[in-house]
This record gives sequence, C-alpha cells and structure tokens, in this order.
Amino acid sequence: MKEIHDLKGLEVGYDIPALPGMDEAEIQTPCLVLDLDALERNIRKMGDFARSHGMRHRVHGKMHKSVDVALLQQRLGGAVGVCCQKVSEAEAFARGGITDIMITNQVCDPAKIDRLARMPKLGTRVICCVDHLANVADLSAAAQRHDATIECLVEIDVGAGRCGVQYGAPVVALAKAIVAAPGLKYAGIQAYQGAMQHLQTYQERRAKTQVAIDQVRATLDVLIAEGIESDIIGGGGTGSYYFEAASGVFNELQCGSYAFMDADYGRVLDKDGNRLDQGEWENALFILTSVMSHVKADIAIVDAGLKVQSVDSGLPLIHGRDDLEYVQCSDEHGTVADPQGVLNINDRLKLIPGHCDPTCNLHDWYVGLRDGKVEVVWPVSARGKAY
Amino acid sequence: MKEIHDLKGLEVGYDIPALPGMDEAEIQTPCLVLDLDALERNIRKMGDFARSHGMRHRVHGKMHKSVDVALLQQRLGGAVGVCCQKVSEAEAFARGGITDIMITNQVCDPAKIDRLARMPKLGTRVICCVDHLANVADLSAAAQRHDATIECLVEIDVGAGRCGVQYGAPVVALAKAIVAAPGLKYAGIQAYQGAMQHLQTYQERRAKTQVAIDQVRATLDVLIAEGIESDIIGGGGTGSYYFEAASGVFNELQCGSYAFMDADYGRVLDKDGNRLDQGEWENALFILTSVMSHVKADIAIVDAGLKVQSVDSGLPLIHGRDDLEYVQCSDEHGTVADPQGVLNINDRLKLIPGHCDPTCNLHDWYVGLRDGKVEVVWPVSARGKAY
Repeated sequence: MKEIHDLKGLEVGYDIPALPGMDEAEIQTPCLVLDLDALERNIRKMGDFARSHGMRHRVHGKMHKSVDVALLQQRLGGAVGVCCQKVSEAEAFARGGITDIMITNQVCDPAKIDRLARMPKLGTRVICCVDHLANVADLSAAAQRHDATIECLVEIDVGAGRCGVQYGAPVVALAKAIVAAPGLKYAGIQAYQGAMQHLQTYQERRAKTQVAIDQVRATLDVLIAEGIESDIIGGGGTGSYYFEAASGVFNELQCGSYAFMDADYGRVLDKDGNRLDQGEWENALFILTSVMSHVKADIAIVDAGLKVQSVDSGLPLIHGRDDLEYVQCSDEHGTVADPQGVLNINDRLKLIPGHCDPTCNLHDWYVGLRDGKVEVVWPVSARGKAY
Repeated sequence: MKEIHDLKGLEVGYDIPALPGMDEAEIQTPCLVLDLDALERNIRKMGDFARSHGMRHRVHGKMHKSVDVALLQQRLGGAVGVCCQKVSEAEAFARGGITDIMITNQVCDPAKIDRLARMPKLGTRVICCVDHLANVADLSAAAQRHDATIECLVEIDVGAGRCGVQYGAPVVALAKAIVAAPGLKYAGIQAYQGAMQHLQTYQERRAKTQVAIDQVRATLDVLIAEGIESDIIGGGGTGSYYFEAASGVFNELQCGSYAFMDADYGRVLDKDGNRLDQGEWENALFILTSVMSHVKADIAIVDAGLKVQSVDSGLPLIHGRDDLEYVQCSDEHGTVADPQGVLNINDRLKLIPGHCDPTCNLHDWYVGLRDGKVEVVWPVSARGKAY
C-alpha cells in the first residue's frame, strides 16, 4: 500500500503524530492508530458478505471521515460509494476522488443546497434524503440553477424517532413530488434504524429490524402500484446488516463501524451469544496513549482524556491488558487502575474507544501500523466537516 | 477590534462557517459563536477581581485553545500569561505571540521534553509541572542540551486524585532536586483542585479548597525553613478562585471557563445560592444550530449532535427559549422537544454547551458576533493539539 500524501515538512509532534517508516515506539501520543491487517480483514469480510448476498455496499464514511479508508473499502471490499451526513463531508470525499456519494440526511439550508447542486459538475453523483415537501421545491430550484441532477431518497422513520416520514402514503406523496420536480431524480428509499443497532441481543435487533423491513415492503407495494420504481432501498448497520441482506427488500447496505469496531459495538452479541469483537469483527482502531504520572502505587495517569475520545457510549477498554482498567476520563487525563503497580512512566497502552465515530472526528490523522512499523499516515479528511 | 487573520480565499461552508461583515443569519451551522460583548465583560470582570485582590491571573488556555482569546485576556483582563496542558498547545500559543506559558501538566516523553526545551529559544518563558524524580533529570538534560532554562513547579495532589505528589516532604524532595538540576529553575507550586470546581454549593467548594490551602501552607512552611523560595503558588478555577484569592497563600489564579461559561458551570451555585450563570458570569459561547427536520409535530431535529459538542457533563441548554428542550444527542442530530410546535425548518437556536473545554476542541473556528453582525472569525489555534 503506497502513501499517497505528501507529508514532507510536517514536524512530528507539532503537526503530525508520526511519519511512515517510524517504529511504533516513536509515535507521539495520544493519537489514533490503525491495525492495517485487521482493518483489511474487516473490509474484505464485509465485502465478501455483501457480494455473496447480492447486496451493494455503500460504506458509511461518517464513521471514519477518511478518503483513504473509503478508497480501501472500494478497492478491497467492493464498496459502490460512500454515505456521509453533511454537505461539507460530501465535498471532502468528492475532492478526494469518491464519485458516488449519498448524504443520508436532509439538506435544507439554502447555502448548503446550493453547494450540493454544484457537486455534480465535479463529476460526482450526489444523493440526499428528503422528508419535507417544501424541501423538494428548494432542491429542484437549485438543481435547475446549476443545470445539475440531484438524486433524492425519501427517508422513512422506521423506528429511530429522528428524521423521516411515516411509511406508506407520506412516502408516496414525496416520491411523486420528486418525480415531478425538474432537476431531481427519485432514487428510492432510505430506511436506517439507528436506534436499535446497539441493542445487546440478536433477537431484540431482529425484531426491530423486522418492523422496518415490513414497513419498507408495504411502502414499496404502494409505490410499485403507482408505477414508481425505486433504484436504491438503503439501510443496515453493523448491528443489523444480515437482517436487511436476508429481507428480499433492501438492496444497499450502509455499514460503518464494522471496519474499525469500538467498545460499545464490542458488547453487542451475535446470534450465538458471542460478543461482536470476539469473532465477527476485529478491533482495528486504537488510541495510543502513554503513562505520564504514577505517584499512587495503584493508579496510573495516561495522556488520553476527553479531548481525544468521546465517552458518550462508555469508557474505553485497554487492549490486551486484563490486569488494567481505564476507570475515569477527564479533559486531558485518563485514570487507569493498576492494582499490581506494573506500569511505568512512558509505558504505552492501546485503548479501544467507547464510540468510534465521534472519537475519529477529534483527530487529524490515522497512523496505520503493520508489523510494528508505521506504514501510512492518513488525514481524517472530513474531520470537523459538520456544516 | 480588528481582524488579525487573513481569511481571503476561504469558502464559507467548506472551510469556514462565516466571514467578517456577514449578518448572523448568513452563518453556516452548526458552529461556535461568541457574544463578544459578554466575553469582554467576563474578561474585564475577572481581570478587575484579580487586580483588586493582588493576584496574578494566568488564564487557562486549555479551555478555548485560541491565541486571539488569550491576547484579549491579556489586553482587557491583565492576564500575565497562559496555562495549557500539552507541549503542542504551548507551541501553538508561542507561535501566536504568547510569551509566558505554563504547562499545568507533566511532560515525560523524551520527544516532548526535547520540544519543550527548544521553546525558550523562541523567546517564550516555559514552565511545567513535575511529580516524579526521574523526570527532573530528563528535563535537566534537555535544558542543558538546548542551552535553555525550563522552569518547574512541583505539583501537589490537593484532592483531585490525579497527578501530583502528597504535600509536605515529597514536595520538598522534588524542589531540592529541581534547585540542584542544571538548566532547571524551581518556580513554585501547582495546586489545582480540579475535582471540586463543579460541586454545587459554595460551602462544599469552600471546604474542599480549604483542605488544599492548608496543605499548600504547610508545604510552604517547610520549603521556607529549607531556604527555598517559591515564585508561583498557582491554582484556582471558575468554581473556587475567590477562595484561593483570599487564602494569603496562592498568588496566581488559573481560571478558564469563566470567559465562555457552559451549562455545567451554570448549575453551580454562588455564595448566595444563585446559579453562576445568573449574575456572576454571562454565557458568551454558543453552538449555533438549525432545524433540519420537523416531521413529528412536537419534535424538531437540529444539526448539532455529538460531533460538535461533548455531552460528558450533560446535554446543552437552549439559550433564551424556555419553551424548548434539547432532549437527545446522537452523532449528527439533536432532538429538541417542541411541545407547542413553534419551530420551522431552518429556524436557528443557540445552544449553551454542557462542557465548554471539550466542545471548543471539536471546532476550527469561533465566529464573534456583535449587534447581529459577524465582527471577527478566530481560529481555534490549538484545536486537536493533544500531543
């Protein structure tokens, strides 16, 4: 794998945590590191699954926000393109060479709609979600103004309780408006059940997904009766993709976290009752951290706190160290229980973050490791792109 | 106030949320906005307090990570310099023209120590904390290698339970080692009680701070008996600065959050039982967010989720809107209860973040507002500088 970024002139520590060719021990902490072998195995495994189930896989780039990871997912995992959540994220992926981009979200602000309508001129297919009739007119006006085509999915709220209309008639009304709107193309249905991806048991997740599948099927029946064809029926995440794949209704998966994994998904159980991080997926993402204080015999302080990880879904785990526990997170520090007092100043630990998406968004770089060496350093291309 | 940054060529939305001169309505959301009048009042008020109590104020830059805010604190608030937590943060402040910088933290990694020792050559006074004897030798070697002076504080753990040695004899032992070490200067004592700043009542905070004050006084007695002079006795935060100022022991305050405030500090009570955000300090920092979906009559979805704010200390408040409540935060979305259904798509709200420090660290820019216009756009100079 070649390094595609010119990193010359960056100062290690000030600008960047490491440079390619360094030993792992030379990396400046705290920073994100990727186990490239594990990452590639995860990507290939999900790609094989999608292919063997006749599904397209449009990987969710909101998780990693990295052009390089997305390109790897296309090359090794056969991904057809990228999902993301914001126009500025889509622009970052488009500038990096991703040519098929779905914003799995509404775009309502006039300035954002205008930017969205400019993207097809750059050679990028753009797809966004709609759940509001007035938005159709605004998107259509912008598409015409820029002589572009914006593809639109109608989003159904299949249980997450956030965006999206109710299944059935409200979807049909929006689909008809999109079909009739100059500059827009009706592309299909977005039906992601975000609220159940982290439910612990397979059975709970199956029951919630079945509700979504039934709602989508009922909606498609009405659309077909009205003569409206849906190219994309999209949804599915790391906690549910096998249900959507077996549904006979969905044709695109939108998984994100499977590639990196995190502590919260790790606790989710598969159909045999095993943790997802014990067989289905490997942890490929870690926060490399160093011990910076150890005055108390049984407590070590590490340099990874709230500014390098999100604890909304719980504290991080310490990779491969059952003798230690990360017990408290403050702005700049992590408190590690070290009951046997085995840690020393400058010892390094690899943390498995509680929640990968908002953790990755805190960092500028991924340091990719193989065989104890830094092989690549990739920018978090869309970090902070929230507009 | 003049705009000191050249923002020409930045594209609003892609690179930056706004440009100076814009109307507030043109700002791209979500982003951080500052009420410049409120910010300046907060800064002047704390400056007046410190001056009238004979205290130096070394403002904590880890909160805002902004060279521009730090310079304003020096100019309007008489701050003597800046505190920060990491070497890379110190470098960002030094490059921005701050010449007196204290790292209120240990610096142990060899590469970080080397960078620290290079900073005095740039004309910057550098001070760091020590709580480990071997660290003294490493700092001394680096200072000699670079023909520099590194000033060292001995950190006392006065109750936070993280870094720092026990008061009394362990402090004296470290102070003597620093005094004896070539290239180092013993600068004094760091005694910040971080664990009690957010205790709700004034009485609880006073009791905890009194323990810290007593420990510092006892330590100083021994140091003076040993003939060791301490230039800096530093500590104090937004929840305690009046205790340290009245102690007769401390001579430097290190407040940070007072300048911006947040929802968590807002809940803290002053000595009369009033919330800190109801008189003592004004909210000057907000997350500007837009409504992007409102399918359900009583629920609006806004564009500010976990990627633009840290919820470690609770959800944000909605400024000036008692009729609305921010009830749930997911990666990209906020769910706002709107029981009267008054919100419309693209309506804007100002959120008071739960916790300012890790929220600021998520953003690239502060948009400074006065009288409904964008007056300045300041970079979050040390955002992501965690190394």
